[in-house]
Amino acid sequence: MSNPFFKNLGPFSITEILKLLNVKMTGIVEDELVSDIKDLYSSESGDITFFHSNKYKDIAKNTNASFCITNEFLKNALPKKCIPIIVNNVLISVSILTGKFYPDSINDEYDNTVDDIAKTKYRDNVKYGKNVLLGANVSIGNNCLIGHNSIIEKNVSIGNNCSIGSNTIIRNTIIKNNVNILDNCVIGKHGFGFFPNKFKNIRYPHIGIVIIDENCEIGCGATIDRGSMSNTEIGKNTFLDNQVHIAHNVKIGENSIIAGQVGIAGSSVIGNNVRIGGQAGISGHLKIGNNVDIAGGSGVIKNILDNTKVMGYPAKNIREFLKENK
Amino acid sequence: MSNPFFKNLGPFSITEILKLLNVKMTGIVEDELVSDIKDLYSSESGDITFFHSNKYKDIAKNTNASFCITNEFLKNALPKKCIPIIVNNVLISVSILTGKFYPDSINDEYDNTVDDIAKTKYRDNVKYGKNVLLGANVSIGNNCLIGHNSIIEKNVSIGNNCSIGSNTIIRNTIIKNNVNILDNCVIGKHGFGFFPNKFKNIRYPHIGIVIIDENCEIGCGATIDRGSMSNTEIGKNTFLDNQVHIAHNVKIGENSIIAGQVGIAGSSVIGNNVRIGGQAGISGHLKIGNNVDIAGGSGVIKNILDNTKVMGYPAKNIREFLKENK
Amino acid sequence: MSNPFFKNLGPFSITEILKLLNVKMTGIVEDELVSDIKDLYSSESGDITFFHSNKYKDIAKNTNASFCITNEFLKNALPKKCIPIIVNNVLISVSILTGKFYPDSINDEYDNTVDDIAKTKYRDNVKYGKNVLLGANVSIGNNCLIGHNSIIEKNVSIGNNCSIGSNTIIRNTIIKNNVNILDNCVIGKHGFGFFPNKFKNIRYPHIGIVIIDENCEIGCGATIDRGSMSNTEIGKNTFLDNQVHIAHNVKIGENSIIAGQVGIAGSSVIGNNVRIGGQAGISGHLKIGNNVDIAGGSGVIKNILDNTKVMGYPAKNIREFLKENK
Repeated sequence: MSNPFFKNLGPFSITEILKLLNVKMTGIVEDELVSDIKDLYSSESGDITFFHSNKYKDIAKNTNASFCITNEFLKNALPKKCIPIIVNNVLISVSILTGKFYPDSINDEYDNTVDDIAKTKYRDNVKYGKNVLLGANVSIGNNCLIGHNSIIEKNVSIGNNCSIGSNTIIRNTIIKNNVNILDNCVIGKHGFGFFPNKFKNIRYPHIGIVIIDENCEIGCGATIDRGSMSNTEIGKNTFLDNQVHIAHNVKIGENSIIAGQVGIAGSSVIGNNVRIGGQAGISGHLKIGNNVDIAGGSGVIKNILDNTKVMGYPAKNIREFLKENK
Repeated sequence: MSNPFFKNLGPFSITEILKLLNVKMTGIVEDELVSDIKDLYSSESGDITFFHSNKYKDIAKNTNASFCITNEFLKNALPKKCIPIIVNNVLISVSILTGKFYPDSINDEYDNTVDDIAKTKYRDNVKYGKNVLLGANVSIGNNCLIGHNSIIEKNVSIGNNCSIGSNTIIRNTIIKNNVNILDNCVIGKHGFGFFPNKFKNIRYPHIGIVIIDENCEIGCGATIDRGSMSNTEIGKNTFLDNQVHIAHNVKIGENSIIAGQVGIAGSSVIGNNVRIGGQAGISGHLKIGNNVDIAGGSGVIKNILDNTKVMGYPAKNIREFLKENK
Repeated sequence: MSNPFFKNLGPFSITEILKLLNVKMTGIVEDELVSDIKDLYSSESGDITFFHSNKYKDIAKNTNASFCITNEFLKNALPKKCIPIIVNNVLISVSILTGKFYPDSINDEYDNTVDDIAKTKYRDNVKYGKNVLLGANVSIGNNCLIGHNSIIEKNVSIGNNCSIGSNTIIRNTIIKNNVNILDNCVIGKHGFGFFPNKFKNIRYPHIGIVIIDENCEIGCGATIDRGSMSNTEIGKNTFLDNQVHIAHNVKIGENSIIAGQVGIAGSSVIGNNVRIGGQAGISGHLKIGNNVDIAGGSGVIKNILDNTKVMGYPAKNIREFLKENK
């Protein structure tokens, strides 16, 4: 995952990590250092990873991680060089440990590093409205505009020829060239991801960011959440209408058109040249192919193949739907 | 109803009330004072109440109110000690009279009592962003944050360890401890309640407030309207995602999870441990039990029993729905 | 179309227009001036119009325009006095040419003409909150309120006794008397109208405005886009709840009630006394009659006759729908 924003506070010794997770183990080299926490696939020697479901068995077999947070039932799938760390709830332990490596990724408080743009080096380079605030670690390209009362919080990179509207809030986001973001948007906040827990739910860290590629437009009142363990991405020349909601980890391809009040739930992947009508909803963890048309108001609960037109709730082939609903 | 915010300007003499309602009656003790306007159930001696539908007959029979706004067809159900006041349209008269007792509850103009937080006693006690405004009768606990451009309008109580995002507007709301409210929300405005009337609709007063209990999270762009004759309530540890709309008088239980773009219409009551998927809608005046799962995109138009999973529009048992829609 | 806001920079010579459209023609009077670009119906002698679909054949036959952008297949329907200008893509050429006549209508950048209301002539005439900005060409009637952080951008006319909430942005809009617009709205931005084009979509100009008639109320977080070639209109005493989206060119009649999170797609026309339940969606280019009831959650994809009640997706007669879905 390409993510220049969240600082890794590691390495930490494995002893410190075990203590944090409240795990007792023997036969560990106490001073061994752990560099980073990553998924099974991208971990390297020196990293700690996690393995919580049998469906990742094949990837687990080949992980290069030195340690793996897992449970008794899964641990045998790991390679010998990867030491299993057995916990009661894998994802909660991952959440706790990710927060140790990347504490910035948990904190979604308002950004208190901001300053009036007129006091920054961008005052001469950007055309800006009244009461515009810029946070730490913000970069802005040439020929950009930022409207009134907008807040570019920390960890934002804006390309050339971009226009940001008024009353918009952005953080943890890379915006490429020629992007228009309209008014009242909130982009880059953590997603709706947490472990439900009686009395007090437990938030998990969101170390992903939002990437909005060239030539996109984001309508008024849109919300685009940043990713948890991967990024949320909007492909080149994709246009979103007003009041659209894009959840964490969603990836949308190029040249797609997403009409008003559409919602896309977490981790779904949308192809290129996809057209989604107003108020349609797409469940989480789905794959929508290329050149797909989803009629307005549809509710998509299954994967959709390339070159398909669907309608209805649950969405099905549009001709079939219209024949049944004459 | 627990509501510390709207001031009762009563008592008023019954003569003044009759004049306001354009009702002529004889045999009234002209100077008799009326203390308050309440519903049939909670009225006490000295109060005025209202009775507009036969379905409240049994409660009407036992009301303790001294006066009751009603019509010719219903008046005989009232006890002898309660004097009926006959009007053409009960609810419009109630609306007019409630406005007399609680004029603050009608006015939803922007709050002109606000001042920059830096000029208030909270400047040292709260961590706050730029351009934060606080209205009259606001109290804030320890260890709270308020983001940029947010407006805490009059009649708001915030507990300890709360975080309010940026560009958020709150009024007439009690927020308990450990609550997070994200960016761009509007909480505590009057609901969408009025008497349709050709040429000019008539707003009725909203004397209810919003109560958000401990450990809740409210997502970006959410709107939560305050109640009309009761409060709008969000139970402990309930999380709302982005762009959710909660209408007036709605009550949501504890440990519930409400995904993006859900809408709940006026006066519906949602139980504990309820999970509502993205874009689902719930009609008004319904009762949703405990431990209910409502699939994303569903449209609920009937009450739902405890421990039920539903899907579809209209929502039905999820297994039945999926079998019919394979 | 009544639209006082966008300045017509014409006339332009036909030679200049042909050059812009990259069209080569002979036998043209090079210096002939073209006054304006209008639709087939409203064009007068000296104007240029466009004709891109056979369904406008009957109107095309009687147009008074002097020139018409069209294609080889349609040109013969035009009257003799109207000279056809043959292009590859009629709508793209119209878009380019409209941008030449009305360049203001393309630019939806934040308004950099705004100033603090306290520095304008309205400082004594309007009751206003903190940080209120007014753009060029704004007029405000008597007895109006504007809440905190709201931006009345250029080209707005507000009547008497109007109340604008906080954090609201308005441009290119006429608001008549006794209108309430609540918080966090965005009104008068261009619609979601463009020609999809690989690599870079092409926006078309929006020379329409928004007109909100007397006694209307617009809920929190609503978005109302201005029209492209006609206006977006909300009729007298029509109330919109929170988070409603009204797309470009939509026209809504009088005394209508539109509940939370409803979306109405581009160019649909809604009658008088229409009631639309929460989250209902209406497709584009439809005609909804008078006295129509659309149940919450419905998806309307066909015209609806006067005095009809519908429900479902696709919406059908409500009795039929409820019988089928018992």
